[in-house]
Order: sequence, then structure tokens, then C-alpha cells
Amino acid sequence: MSRGLFITLEGCEGSGKSSQAKMLAARLKQEGYDAVLTREPGGTPLGEAVSKILKWSTPGSINPIAELLLFNASRAQLVTDIINPALNTGQIVICDRYTDSSLVYQGLGRGLSPEIIQHMNDIAIQGLTPDLTILLDIPVETGRERKRHDTADRFEQESLDFHCRVRDAYLKLAEEEPQRWRIVKADAPKQTISEAIWLHVKGMLGA
Amino acid sequence: MSRGLFITLEGCEGSGKSSQAKMLAARLKQEGYDAVLTREPGGTPLGEAVSKILKWSTPGSINPIAELLLFNASRAQLVTDIINPALNTGQIVICDRYTDSSLVYQGLGRGLSPEIIQHMNDIAIQGLTPDLTILLDIPVETGRERKRHDTADRFEQESLDFHCRVRDAYLKLAEEEPQRWRIVKADAPKQTISEAIWLHVKGMLGA
Repeated sequence: MSRGLFITLEGCEGSGKSSQAKMLAARLKQEGYDAVLTREPGGTPLGEAVSKILKWSTPGSINPIAELLLFNASRAQLVTDIINPALNTGQIVICDRYTDSSLVYQGLGRGLSPEIIQHMNDIAIQGLTPDLTILLDIPVETGRERKRHDTADRFEQESLDFHCRVRDAYLKLAEEEPQRWRIVKADAPKQTISEAIWLHVKGMLGA
Repeated sequence: MSRGLFITLEGCEGSGKSSQAKMLAARLKQEGYDAVLTREPGGTPLGEAVSKILKWSTPGSINPIAELLLFNASRAQLVTDIINPALNTGQIVICDRYTDSSLVYQGLGRGLSPEIIQHMNDIAIQGLTPDLTILLDIPVETGRERKRHDTADRFEQESLDFHCRVRDAYLKLAEEEPQRWRIVKADAPKQTISEAIWLHVKGMLGA
């Protein structure tokens, strides 16, 4: 049995990652593939517990280093319990956020050095890099407008400037590693975005 | 105002660390010192939330790397929010477990490399090493006997062999860095142990 395919979705708040991750999983199943949909932080009982701490703490109350360590604790458990076992049995794993989110949010966002983040990521993932990363790119104001009616968690309460830096950081990562990243414009109807993502995934599947 | 003093207590399950930490804090206050008592994991709202995850997860369900990251998340927050501010205002901080617990439990206990643990500890503490570490040393069987009537959390359910390795690892650390460590025999009446600890602390205070 050949190893599966590991796809991650990245993007700013309101870029529609979670909906698109679900649509991609459904499409893969429809096309006859075994697909596992998971997310960060979360995806395991430990990860979900960590996620609660991260999302609902008072803004500014979590030390940036502690935040980075919590994300990576969730990640280490997810890789061991969910992602690696699925890939080893030939399944396609779709993960809503992964190491690039740490690089972007804790790095350029929180001002931690890229070296510390990369090192911590490496310890957590133990070599498991994505085969394909989809960046859902959206102008910051559009993303915020989409999220306007939701209850704002800690991340969504951040300033406009923070979200702009996040977007720029994602585009820079995609530019540095074009063989892994595909940029999809996300200020479009859901079905249009979903088709664009599917074309990239289909390309990887050789279908 | 001169910087305070940072004292950590280490030892196996049932060594009486928590009681002795309280007694030491009370003694210091009685002698006119400002003392802050805290513990790991815990000591901050974030740390207490992490502690709950660590202590009450099913045995074997937490990946060793995730465990190490969680302990250090709690630690990073504790150093920033509690320990450093107290030391900076001249207080004496007593911490029930610190980096040495990670070295011992996650290292020799869980089989993680000392380099990874040390590196992770260093990132979390950012240079804050204890001025004095008290090892409450107790034969493993005595410690287990003391804990017999308590509800066993995840750590206390570990095997006898594990607890023996923990004790040996502590003694090795103390031997490697004798200027920081003091070994106190903990299979004695509480008051006797407390007096022994007080003499070491008094020595550091120059009182």
C-alpha cells in the first residue's frame, strides 16, 4: 500500500478555510478516495482541550512562548495519533492549519524568532511536512467582514494591522516554497474556490 | 532593591514536596521574609488548565513530546507572570517542581533525549535557573506507601521500575551540580525534614 497524501489549508481569518476543507473532503470521497479531515489546534482529545485554552483566554494573557508550545503540543499529538496512521494506510489527510500557521501567527504576528518557531515545529512534527499547502488568500477587510457576525475569539479580536501582517507573511512563505504552495483567491463564490482547490489536488493525485 | 531568591523543590511521588514547600513558605514569612509559593505544572490560570490535561488524561494517551511541550507552556507562563516579577521585587520564590522535573520525568522516564528537553526548558525559562534546589530523597517504596490512600493520578499509576529510575535520575542531577542542589532525606518526621530544609535556605540567605 502506498503512502497517502498530506494536504494543509492555510489563510487569514474569514478566508473560508474550514468550509473549503470540508468541501474538499467531500469531493475526495465522492471521487472514491479515503479522506481524513482534521484541524489545528485540535483533532484529538488533547488537542481540543489545548484549543479551548488558546481560543478563550483573555487577549494578551498568554505569553507568546507558552502559546507556541501549546500549539505544538496539540500538533505533536495530532501527527502521532491521526495524521501519520492515516497516511501510512494510504489515506488522504486534509488539515485545517499546520506548521505554517505557527510561523505566521507566532512569528511575524507575535514577534518570535523564525528559528525558535521552526525548531519547535520540527520537534513536534518529526519530519512530517505537507505534500501540498493551499493558501486561501483574501483581502484582510473582506475576511473581517465575513467574520463580523460571529462571536469573536481571541485571534479574531486582533488589530487590522496584525491581520495585514499575517496575510503578507503567508504570501512570503508561498513565494519561498512554490513547489509546495498553491495560492487560491478566496474572495469568490464558495463553489468557484472549491473548483480551484480541486484542480490543484487533482494535479497531485495524477487523476 | 536586590533581586530575590529562587528555590525549587524536587523529588519522587510521596516525598512530601508539597507539604514541605508550604512549611518553608510559612517559616520564611515567620522570619520576616516576603515569600511566594507556586508550583508546576500550574501556578497561573493557563498553567492550571494545562495541569488538568496532564494529570487526568488516560495513561499512555499523551505523546511524550506533547507532554514535554505542555509542561513547558505552563512553565513559560509561570516564569513571566509569577516568578520573575516576584524576584524582581526582592521576594523569595518557592516552586514545587521546575525544569529538573522535565529532565527526570520526560527524559530518563519517557526516554526523550536530554538535549531536546534541555533545549525546550531553555526556551521556556529564558535564563531563569534556581538559586537553590532541594531534593527530597526517599526510598521508592516508602513514597508509594505514603500515597497509597490518595486517588492515583496518571503519574502515580506508573510502575515501580519507573519510579526507581526517577529517583536515580534525581540523584545523578544533584551529583552533577552540587553547588545548586541539597539532598534532604525525606523518610523522617515532617518537622525534622522541615528543619533540614530551613538550615539550607538560611545558609543561602546569610541569616
